[in-house]
Amino acid sequence: MINDFVYDIPVRVYFGRDQLHHLGAELSRYGKRVLMTYGGGSIKRIGLYDRVVKEIRDAGLELYELPGIEPNPRIDSVRRGAQMCKEHNIDVLLAVGGGSTIDATKFIAAGACVDFDPWDFLDLSKRAPVERALPIVDILTLSATGSEMDSGGVISNPSTNDKIGRLDPKLLPKVSFLDPTNTFTVSPYQTACGAADMMSHIIEVYFNMEPDFFMLDCFMEGMMKTILRYAPVAMREPENYEARANLMWTSSWAINGFVNAGKRLAWSCHPMEHELSAYYDITHGLGLAILTPRWLEYCLDESTVSRYAQWGVNVFGISASLPPMEIARKAIAELSHFLFGVLQLKRTLTEVGIDATHFATMAHKAAGGDVLPGFKPLRPADVEAIYRMCL
Amino acid sequence: MINDFVYDIPVRVYFGRDQLHHLGAELSRYGKRVLMTYGGGSIKRIGLYDRVVKEIRDAGLELYELPGIEPNPRIDSVRRGAQMCKEHNIDVLLAVGGGSTIDATKFIAAGACVDFDPWDFLDLSKRAPVERALPIVDILTLSATGSEMDSGGVISNPSTNDKIGRLDPKLLPKVSFLDPTNTFTVSPYQTACGAADMMSHIIEVYFNMEPDFFMLDCFMEGMMKTILRYAPVAMREPENYEARANLMWTSSWAINGFVNAGKRLAWSCHPMEHELSAYYDITHGLGLAILTPRWLEYCLDESTVSRYAQWGVNVFGISASLPPMEIARKAIAELSHFLFGVLQLKRTLTEVGIDATHFATMAHKAAGGDVLPGFKPLRPADVEAIYRMCL
Repeated sequence: MINDFVYDIPVRVYFGRDQLHHLGAELSRYGKRVLMTYGGGSIKRIGLYDRVVKEIRDAGLELYELPGIEPNPRIDSVRRGAQMCKEHNIDVLLAVGGGSTIDATKFIAAGACVDFDPWDFLDLSKRAPVERALPIVDILTLSATGSEMDSGGVISNPSTNDKIGRLDPKLLPKVSFLDPTNTFTVSPYQTACGAADMMSHIIEVYFNMEPDFFMLDCFMEGMMKTILRYAPVAMREPENYEARANLMWTSSWAINGFVNAGKRLAWSCHPMEHELSAYYDITHGLGLAILTPRWLEYCLDESTVSRYAQWGVNVFGISASLPPMEIARKAIAELSHFLFGVLQLKRTLTEVGIDATHFATMAHKAAGGDVLPGFKPLRPADVEAIYRMCL
Repeated sequence: MINDFVYDIPVRVYFGRDQLHHLGAELSRYGKRVLMTYGGGSIKRIGLYDRVVKEIRDAGLELYELPGIEPNPRIDSVRRGAQMCKEHNIDVLLAVGGGSTIDATKFIAAGACVDFDPWDFLDLSKRAPVERALPIVDILTLSATGSEMDSGGVISNPSTNDKIGRLDPKLLPKVSFLDPTNTFTVSPYQTACGAADMMSHIIEVYFNMEPDFFMLDCFMEGMMKTILRYAPVAMREPENYEARANLMWTSSWAINGFVNAGKRLAWSCHPMEHELSAYYDITHGLGLAILTPRWLEYCLDESTVSRYAQWGVNVFGISASLPPMEIARKAIAELSHFLFGVLQLKRTLTEVGIDATHFATMAHKAAGGDVLPGFKPLRPADVEAIYRMCL
């Protein structure tokens, strides 16, 4: 029976090409002093930086800047940002970038309100409560993680090889600006990694032993079809607005909580991937692309096959008249073809320079030392076996 | 090209069987004095009334009551409610019922904050601005109109034969309690009318000449499949939780604005139906059921056929290899079969006692005296022709 749930996603989204003129008014609702966070130079190259600075100046706000947020954002950037908020008495944060920038900004927003080290929010032995956080506005430049409409973030701590996520409603952005044209310059490779990331977000929820909600199954299947349809278009025609818009809105809805409704979720591929990128700093979406088909293969058996069959028929259009196990195998093959053929992502860990050296430790950590719950509960030995399938 | 849009639906939804214990705390966020609005005796028969009163008392709140809100709610109920709010200095409204109760409560909430007659919010010659409204919490007991998650309402004025809708973000409920078990006693007939209403909400958006958003098309198709699948189950097994839950969540998402994104909508069947129920007070969903297939038939031609074909293939599973016009005709026949065969709704206006007497006047009003924009612009003569097809 479908579980009870609370739906509560009060993010205001300005979607489209001509929305940034709302930025000044939205920031002003929260105060005068704005800290803008961003990554490298890409927002300057596309002219977004200048446009944003102008909107902020025209609104009479004070602008402070924290550039240099890295992909797989690090706790040191969070510490630096939290420190700046305290020094300059910041009222509102403006994250301009992809999921990494927004994730880091979420913990800067929380870190600004406490006296302790912001790593304590992540550290599994501490998990300090998020009592308060500065308001966050963001301008998205990459369709992938969905951080623009969810309440979570993932932060890396290279000194301990940790990469840890945390969810809290107080971290939800107040306002997100989603302009698909801001992703026109995203490279085919990063577009592919983003598509793999979104696909994984949906698969993690779709393949789950909790009771299903048919209406939401349909929506998840629709989002998977959207990614299959438009990721290759966006790679081929980077300025195809329709493709970029469909991918952008899918990135938000794949993980904002709507499709989870009623499922007490336990994800599998994300914890396994977090170990990969904690140890090797590989692109999150690429790690997920390599892991997901192997994990699906590993979990396929008589007890789980019906879910794969529904997926194969509704998403890949495989004939429903075939035996379920055959549909399931064909569907996994279709997914692999999409990830490694159409998206042209590397197929194995070996190809990205990862060998079995740390597999045992990583598997132990991914399984939280005991068992990784989820679609199929995985012990460290199972996780290690899945890593080995990826070599 | 997809249009720009703003997504902003800050309604908190408690979905499920065991959520009403949050009611006291949610109401208390807005104040002490609660006006509960409801319709007839059904909430007493199912024990919901007692449960709600207990929660309110336990939270130490003061309860006032406005029973007797009618289906196709009337401006007099709104006036009475607004008056009560002023007299008792009400802080928050609690609507317990279906769309009619919630719609009326929205205009009570606005009417409570002004000195003029609340009909001025609706009256097409006045359209008084909604500057402020009391906060609204609702407990839904009928899956149909989607009023629990949208910002609109429709009010009848029998003295002028008017039935007019109005949207305003300030009318959006703050919190909605969606417990599918509260719809277990909804009769098969009312379940069918609700299903027809939801189906119409989706069809009005899906059949539209504005640019389509593939991801949202998939979601609309998923919701239509949900209604096709579960409405007959709920009619046959009124206490089937899965069916009631799917219908309930679909009622909210069919019309909360998510699927419209980017479409400058003009609806067709709803304005035509509002004239029917303004003149004859028939059930809204029934009126829509009779009108929708005729309207689809009337609008089908070479310029619109591709939309029908996509619909036929993706929703009704008609073979994509047939000629588009044939798919379209089959799809309309499938919809008619669903509405009049499966849902057992009456097929013609004649069967519900409506003749052509007022068709000319109603058509004129539905077209706003000139043209009803939408999927296909309709002049009064077109609207009248569609009414005649329903005889």
